[in-house]
Amino acid sequence: MPKMSRLIDIAEKLTPELSTTEVYPVQIVEVLPDEEAFQGWKVQPVDSLESLQHRSFSKNESFVLDFGDHQVGYLNLSLKPIGSPPDAPLRLKLIFGEMPCEIGESFDEYKGWLSRTWLQDEIINIDVLPAQIRLPRRYCFRYLKIEVLDTSRKYTIAFPDIHVTAVTSGNGSGIAPLPDRMPEDLRMMDKIAIKTLQDCMQTVFEDGPKRDRRLWIGDLRLQAQANYLTFQHADLVKRCLYLFGGMTLEHGEVSACVFEKPEPLADDTLLYDYSLFFVATLYDYIEATGDMDTLQELWPIALDQLKLAAGRLDDRGIVKDDTTWWCFIDWHEELNKQASAQAILIYALKRGTELAKRLGQEEIQHWIDEMTLLASDAALAYLWDEQQGFFISGAERQVSWASQVWMVLAEVLDTSSNAALLTHAFNNPPAIGMTTPYMHHHLIEALILSGLKDKALEQMRAYWGEMVKDGADCFWELYNPADKRLSPYGSNLINSYCHAWSCTPTYFIRKYFLD
Amino acid sequence: MPKMSRLIDIAEKLTPELSTTEVYPVQIVEVLPDEEAFQGWKVQPVDSLESLQHRSFSKNESFVLDFGDHQVGYLNLSLKPIGSPPDAPLRLKLIFGEMPCEIGESFDEYKGWLSRTWLQDEIINIDVLPAQIRLPRRYCFRYLKIEVLDTSRKYTIAFPDIHVTAVTSGNGSGIAPLPDRMPEDLRMMDKIAIKTLQDCMQTVFEDGPKRDRRLWIGDLRLQAQANYLTFQHADLVKRCLYLFGGMTLEHGEVSACVFEKPEPLADDTLLYDYSLFFVATLYDYIEATGDMDTLQELWPIALDQLKLAAGRLDDRGIVKDDTTWWCFIDWHEELNKQASAQAILIYALKRGTELAKRLGQEEIQHWIDEMTLLASDAALAYLWDEQQGFFISGAERQVSWASQVWMVLAEVLDTSSNAALLTHAFNNPPAIGMTTPYMHHHLIEALILSGLKDKALEQMRAYWGEMVKDGADCFWELYNPADKRLSPYGSNLINSYCHAWSCTPTYFIRKYFLD
Repeated sequence: MPKMSRLIDIAEKLTPELSTTEVYPVQIVEVLPDEEAFQGWKVQPVDSLESLQHRSFSKNESFVLDFGDHQVGYLNLSLKPIGSPPDAPLRLKLIFGEMPCEIGESFDEYKGWLSRTWLQDEIINIDVLPAQIRLPRRYCFRYLKIEVLDTSRKYTIAFPDIHVTAVTSGNGSGIAPLPDRMPEDLRMMDKIAIKTLQDCMQTVFEDGPKRDRRLWIGDLRLQAQANYLTFQHADLVKRCLYLFGGMTLEHGEVSACVFEKPEPLADDTLLYDYSLFFVATLYDYIEATGDMDTLQELWPIALDQLKLAAGRLDDRGIVKDDTTWWCFIDWHEELNKQASAQAILIYALKRGTELAKRLGQEEIQHWIDEMTLLASDAALAYLWDEQQGFFISGAERQVSWASQVWMVLAEVLDTSSNAALLTHAFNNPPAIGMTTPYMHHHLIEALILSGLKDKALEQMRAYWGEMVKDGADCFWELYNPADKRLSPYGSNLINSYCHAWSCTPTYFIRKYFLD
Repeated sequence: MPKMSRLIDIAEKLTPELSTTEVYPVQIVEVLPDEEAFQGWKVQPVDSLESLQHRSFSKNESFVLDFGDHQVGYLNLSLKPIGSPPDAPLRLKLIFGEMPCEIGESFDEYKGWLSRTWLQDEIINIDVLPAQIRLPRRYCFRYLKIEVLDTSRKYTIAFPDIHVTAVTSGNGSGIAPLPDRMPEDLRMMDKIAIKTLQDCMQTVFEDGPKRDRRLWIGDLRLQAQANYLTFQHADLVKRCLYLFGGMTLEHGEVSACVFEKPEPLADDTLLYDYSLFFVATLYDYIEATGDMDTLQELWPIALDQLKLAAGRLDDRGIVKDDTTWWCFIDWHEELNKQASAQAILIYALKRGTELAKRLGQEEIQHWIDEMTLLASDAALAYLWDEQQGFFISGAERQVSWASQVWMVLAEVLDTSSNAALLTHAFNNPPAIGMTTPYMHHHLIEALILSGLKDKALEQMRAYWGEMVKDGADCFWELYNPADKRLSPYGSNLINSYCHAWSCTPTYFIRKYFLD
């Protein structure tokens, strides 16, 4: 399907200006192995920043700067040779780390299956000194290690100024302070969640400013929900919706992610759930803004997603589970996606009917409602295991947390049955657990929807609260309190430690816990 | 001594525009170990350049391009991803080699004492693909190895265009062709010498475009001599003289080298012989151009060099040899520099008197002539060993080639005695030999000055002719036919393989061998 250039033009016109802030490091530190510390690395202050003004460095000397918080931006380096006029270039290695592990462990040993190019290091050669340089790439880091690979015998190198020009499209000046009665741990969670969201807000809602630095619809949906309660940058959501809507795939499917540069381009990754989230994200946007022009423009694309997804239902009304499709749900190798997908289809249909209603499209609304009924009845008939008291998924009748959570969110059962289902799951935990903050978000939302707010709060504290205790500046892409080096990519170096889908504590706190 | 900003301004106004030429690689090659090949590395063609249009590369794949000749310039790379939209940055390693050894041997093993930063390699990360990039630094190379350090599992990378924008300030269109009768080997030597000079002609006469990429007066003197007979870019010589003249050291000494950027700056390296070559280079420039304005402006600085150098004479009229001075002469750890320095003082005084004469400064001319006589008589009285038939140098009465050659060039003896001295040296070679093409240049000049043109030609063929047989595209900084891995820096990787002081075969051929 060709790009719809009119929609892309609208998206491009909504590209935000980024605001910049100059941020200076706060201290010189070292990163040391420590079995007690998170991921085995401890950060220890070694000197004041001011001490850097009195030092210069020779071949093979290095130091590590701590910028005090997570930064997304451009590095500025002032380089001053000390000694004779520099008679040879300067060669530096720069290593940027969101986390201490990135400073402590060698990137050369990286054996993960995601591209090593996501690890942020540079070797730069500078011919002319003194120099003021600004590295052209954007980095994402709290820690910066500078290694002097070589100067010459005639000079050493000093660093009179090092700072980062931090960038974001999220202006936090309008975010309301939390009421005084809010407990301190929730305040901290809210603050870190907002920082996470802000650092992901660039010219789109990025999934993670370190990796993948681009717009995924699964992340977008949650970012947008948090955004309406914090930064209120509705135009950025609109831009993202128009990017997805303007570049669908072969049969009209909304792609799972899009690229902005060198020109807007849809990725060839197609995920059943992510395409459906276009409907849900559009619904949330309309709820937040009432922007009917956008609804009219994007509705045909949203409706296509419902039709395409419904086309996957078998004769019974159940989403076909075979080897030809991809559905995300959670990072879990053994998770069967059928029941979750069924639930997400129902979840999206229920939002679709509201949009059709707003547009007065009765015939379409009728079709959607029929599909909803079909899929819901089929779910109860074929995916509900009365004996176990759980929804099952796939030919192996797998019981997972994901299936229960998504069926709750799809509201296939009534509220009290949903509450009973989740309570049953806590008492008899399904064999297939949850992996990501993204899946944990949906658990919290499901608990609240079922009237289990206390349990929701307890779970937020057990998950995001533990991340805070483990030193998170921003909330992480991946976290398992029981396995803190967890990575689905084969190395925790490549994990994103500021990740959009983890930013929702602020959404929960501000939506459900203010009164 | 402060910079004389008026002189620097004149120099800066003479900064030439560089002409550019787009140069494309000619073939894909591999560099293989071969004990028979120069420095142990053989270059073997493996594929046509055209084949690159049909290939793309994954993680850890690499290829080596041969640009067919030595290049100085900026690399342009066109990068085209093949497969899915590139979902991760591209990381490339680029290794630039003037010589096969730079491709064959790992820079990581480099243990030489000059800065490793002279070795030309880059690791670059490209976030947005496809891309047309031009690397900001200038490189000097014939061979380019491109290693794909990583892409991602979703794409490979193709290189539809790779070329270099070669730069020089030497315009060869006015260089007269050699007469038909000129033997083929001398034509080849002339051609390579001109290419060497041209690649060193940038915004100054650089010593070597790979290393040190800057203006040394020892190189300048020889480049200027070759330039008057080839490129005839007199203004570039003038610019260089003004740079040296405008930035003298503490007591008014002309520095051995100057930097152009970030702003003109004299190096703190002071060499007795190099300061004196300011006089000789000015003399040659005036002979070539008759530019009396420049002579009047720079003469006081030239005269200062004669006075400062004469101030080093002891009561006998001999240059003091102690641990407080530096004099270059040749790259030879054991060489005593006293006699050569004495000779270079006389050589410079003799050119100084001609300049004083042109300016009608009789009193100064008289002083110079007296100094010349004093230094010459002292050389004969104290440095000439009648029994050995050689000039000796230093307290150890060392006999070196350098002392004999420089005393011939200083014309301390008459022409027939000089011829006899050099013949005697060939028959009874001094223990301390010659190392660099720079020193060999002076041998050739001394032979010609002594009427031994046949011997001069034989020596040119034995030295530069051997370099040609060893595959030189440009003439090298260092060469010893008996030890082809020779480097005074601890590694032949760091040698400059296009070096100004080796460019003089064209000067000899065009000045002395046209008739």
